[in-house]
Amino acid sequence: MKYGARNQIVGKVEGIKKGTVMCEVKLKDVQCDYMESVMTMNSLKELGIKKGDKVRIVVKAVNVLLVKE
Amino acid sequence: MKYGARNQIVGKVEGIKKGTVMCEVKLKDVQCDYMESVMTMNSLKELGIKKGDKVRIVVKAVNVLLVKE
Amino acid sequence: MKYGARNQIVGKVEGIKKGTVMCEVKLKDVQCDYMESVMTMNSLKELGIKKGDKVRIVVKAVNVLLVKE
Amino acid sequence: MKYGARNQIVGKVEGIKKGTVMCEVKLKDVQCDYMESVMTMNSLKELGIKKGDKVRIVVKAVNVLLVKE
Amino acid sequence: MKYGARNQIVGKVEGIKKGTVMCEVKLKDVQCDYMESVMTMNSLKELGIKKGDKVRIVVKAVNVLLVKE
Amino acid sequence: MKYGARNQIVGKVEGIKKGTVMCEVKLKDVQCDYMESVMTMNSLKELGIKKGDKVRIVVKAVNVLLVKE
Repeated sequence: MKYGARNQIVGKVEGIKKGTVMCEVKLKDVQCDYMESVMTMNSLKELGIKKGDKVRIVVKAVNVLLVKE
Repeated sequence: MKYGARNQIVGKVEGIKKGTVMCEVKLKDVQCDYMESVMTMNSLKELGIKKGDKVRIVVKAVNVLLVKE
Repeated sequence: MKYGARNQIVGKVEGIKKGTVMCEVKLKDVQCDYMESVMTMNSLKELGIKKGDKVRIVVKAVNVLLVKE
Repeated sequence: MKYGARNQIVGKVEGIKKGTVMCEVKLKDVQCDYMESVMTMNSLKELGIKKGDKVRIVVKAVNVLLVKE
Repeated sequence: MKYGARNQIVGKVEGIKKGTVMCEVKLKDVQCDYMESVMTMNSLKELGIKKGDKVRIVVKAVNVLLVKE
Repeated sequence: MKYGARNQIVGKVEGIKKGTVMCEVKLKDVQCDYMESVMTMNSLKELGIKKGDKVRIVVKAVNVLLVKE
């Protein structure tokens, strides 16, 4: 399995906050300490993840913003 | 300084690959091991980063895709 | 403070519409008349903005679509 | 003609910087002073815009990042 | 009418699921069998679409992820 | 293998146009007739696709814009 995206991390689902249309998945135990993903509730159903599940986190490089403080 | 985005990491610029319009910034020493960002050459000029510079890496949660393998 | 994004505007928060997971921030008094941003409720909490606050609006050029009518 | 995106501005093409795959379109005379869009060279060909052309600039609200400085 | 985006399909609105801030539009009868779009409730109001309406579906190529399984 | 994205299509690589930093992958034989993806040259190397290869095309619903003409 290979992805056309430069940023890929493996994490664990820590919690899921559900709305009517959208939901937010909190990810822990990843190298990055903490990350979050937002998707539709329907995507969540298809994905079928629950707390503790291992997931691959994929981010295209064009969606990464750099800030110099 | 606060950002309306759920994913924020601090990293160091490892290298910059330049094209005519776009460039790719490689980031190391981040907790995530390795990340990459793509931006326009003009953004790079304004950002004014070079190898070794510390940058904040910002990703909106809607741009994070989860995959269950 | 410098951002790796070609589009940056300063605006004021005009109103915030809150859902369970997502919220919509309406921006006024910007040069562009009117703009909107969508983020998670958690991002809003961290951002800590309220009506009248000045914010910087950042958009990467790859997310700008041109239409010729 | 109606768009499912919260941010829409009318501007004029000020210049086009072309690479092999991507190009950058500079927009002026817009209310926002200055904006930029990045697209593929093929999209540019289909769009058929040149300096001075009027274009509609469309940005989905999920792609707008707010920063509180 | 021309768009600066490489992926354009014509479809029909099959259903709309509404939340407080966001909504999800299901599209059918498109060549692609089935697609979905998420936008704000305000965008939906401005778009003014209902079940059975014909819509153009536009996706910028930078937002398309390829996976080799 | 499951993806947290509402739009997934299977297609074949028709051609690849390479620049210095970015490349464009043309996809054919998909139900959608024709689609395109843009990624970095490095992602292309990792993905390891060539003309004729079968790929899965994944698009998050927040990146789908609807237009009513």
